[in-house]
Amino acid sequence: MSSNTALREFMLFCQNRVEHALDKSLPAESTSPARLHQAMRYAVLGGGKRIRPILTYATGQALGVEINQLDTAACAVEMIHAYSLVHDDLPAMDDDELRRGRPTCHKAYDEATAILVGDALQTQAFQIICTSGNLHASAETRLEMIETLSRASGSRGMCGGQALDLNAVGQELSLAELENLHIHKTGALIRASVNTASLLAPRLEPEQAHQLDHYAKCVGLAFQIRDDILDVEGDTETLGKTQGKDQAQDKPTYPALLGLNGAREKAAELQADAHRSLTGFDSKADPLRWLADYIIGRDY
Amino acid sequence: MSSNTALREFMLFCQNRVEHALDKSLPAESTSPARLHQAMRYAVLGGGKRIRPILTYATGQALGVEINQLDTAACAVEMIHAYSLVHDDLPAMDDDELRRGRPTCHKAYDEATAILVGDALQTQAFQIICTSGNLHASAETRLEMIETLSRASGSRGMCGGQALDLNAVGQELSLAELENLHIHKTGALIRASVNTASLLAPRLEPEQAHQLDHYAKCVGLAFQIRDDILDVEGDTETLGKTQGKDQAQDKPTYPALLGLNGAREKAAELQADAHRSLTGFDSKADPLRWLADYIIGRDY
Repeated sequence: MSSNTALREFMLFCQNRVEHALDKSLPAESTSPARLHQAMRYAVLGGGKRIRPILTYATGQALGVEINQLDTAACAVEMIHAYSLVHDDLPAMDDDELRRGRPTCHKAYDEATAILVGDALQTQAFQIICTSGNLHASAETRLEMIETLSRASGSRGMCGGQALDLNAVGQELSLAELENLHIHKTGALIRASVNTASLLAPRLEPEQAHQLDHYAKCVGLAFQIRDDILDVEGDTETLGKTQGKDQAQDKPTYPALLGLNGAREKAAELQADAHRSLTGFDSKADPLRWLADYIIGRDY
Repeated sequence: MSSNTALREFMLFCQNRVEHALDKSLPAESTSPARLHQAMRYAVLGGGKRIRPILTYATGQALGVEINQLDTAACAVEMIHAYSLVHDDLPAMDDDELRRGRPTCHKAYDEATAILVGDALQTQAFQIICTSGNLHASAETRLEMIETLSRASGSRGMCGGQALDLNAVGQELSLAELENLHIHKTGALIRASVNTASLLAPRLEPEQAHQLDHYAKCVGLAFQIRDDILDVEGDTETLGKTQGKDQAQDKPTYPALLGLNGAREKAAELQADAHRSLTGFDSKADPLRWLADYIIGRDY
């Protein structure tokens, strides 16, 4: 079986697994207030690449964590991601109408509901770490997971990155500034996807945790560079979101700063660095290796 | 010293205390991204009645909790409250221009920033419970605090109440439906203000916790009824927010359902019930008693 096929199977397995876990982690559509819960489920279920949960499962596998133990972390990071997309798509932010190939939440429902959906999804992410019965973890570990996730998603993490992104529209950024933006905007949560799984490892060497965190940093930045490249060369139908938005909105991107080839080279360097940080791991870390390759090569 | 003067002193003490604690719990204005952190501080600091933190301190005092132990809970509930106000004031929600006597966050900054301010304040509330060094509490207690706060503020708590409120515009609600709306929209977080303090008590009898929770339910609902009454009879300058908004927006209110006198009677019943639930407490619970009176009588 080629690593390509193996990855595809691994991803599909994780996607199905997290879909099922998310379905169970969200209030039912019939639970009052029904419209809010319908909209929350609309925003989270039935779509998305699930890169972050896949990284959570792959990290857990590399460290010998039981798979049942990983669902809560996978759901929590995906809920944070989904909330950020719902708010990011709002007219006052990126003003997008298409997400995951469907109308964005505020288009399918309304703006006020979309604001509340994002708010409540964020809360739900923290709540399930407190309450999940499937997660057999001490209060200390749960608290560390919440701390990791909150640091990654707050004003000095993902939200901060979005603020930097807003301020950057129409600005000339240096490469260092662009990198700082993405380290926060997408990188922080991708690192949390990996690091919350590390926290669940039965025996974790600090060095391993450090290497996995470094892997996640590389993959997170490569992911963003690939996103920027796809925004230039992809097409809307394959992407499931509007192509060319970055250019149209005059946002700084890697291709704009480095050229398309320069951006591709930078992504390839990060790919190699990601692989190097896994040299101390055995074949159980192969899905992490495949993912590093996939993230650079993906076309949506 | 009359109870009125004693309450005013107690409130002022708590207001100053929580202001100082909030100031320290929020990233500095100079921390990148500076504009986001400035806007977060604008939304939280220098205003507000601080009813929720005051209830936290008053509950802690009733239970003999050291005051240093209460700052984190007080800040966390106030951050959740402040985030909800910032989002509630957005054009897509209540579309308000005035809050705490100043321009609302999206007016002073912009809508996109206000969305991120609310998002990041919510995260910060959970983060400080994880990380606060002033809070000498076990991981179990911190986790219970986060669970209490997340249940109170999520889709089956405060956010859910806001969704019910959105759906209620222009609708005829029964008294039970209106009560259900407010139990969620404002009641849940007011209960959490009390219940997170209870969690910090050195020795808490379940019966005490239950009585304090009941007190908080009564006070929360009375608070909302008084808010509705003030929206009819108050003036914009004293309120620090736009008077008459509920009627103008055709929102269901207690005065609309029960008449002004009926609403006042209902609030007085809740006040008496709040006092009854404190009969088992000694004079350390007096601030809670004064607060029950104040909430019915306040004119802003």
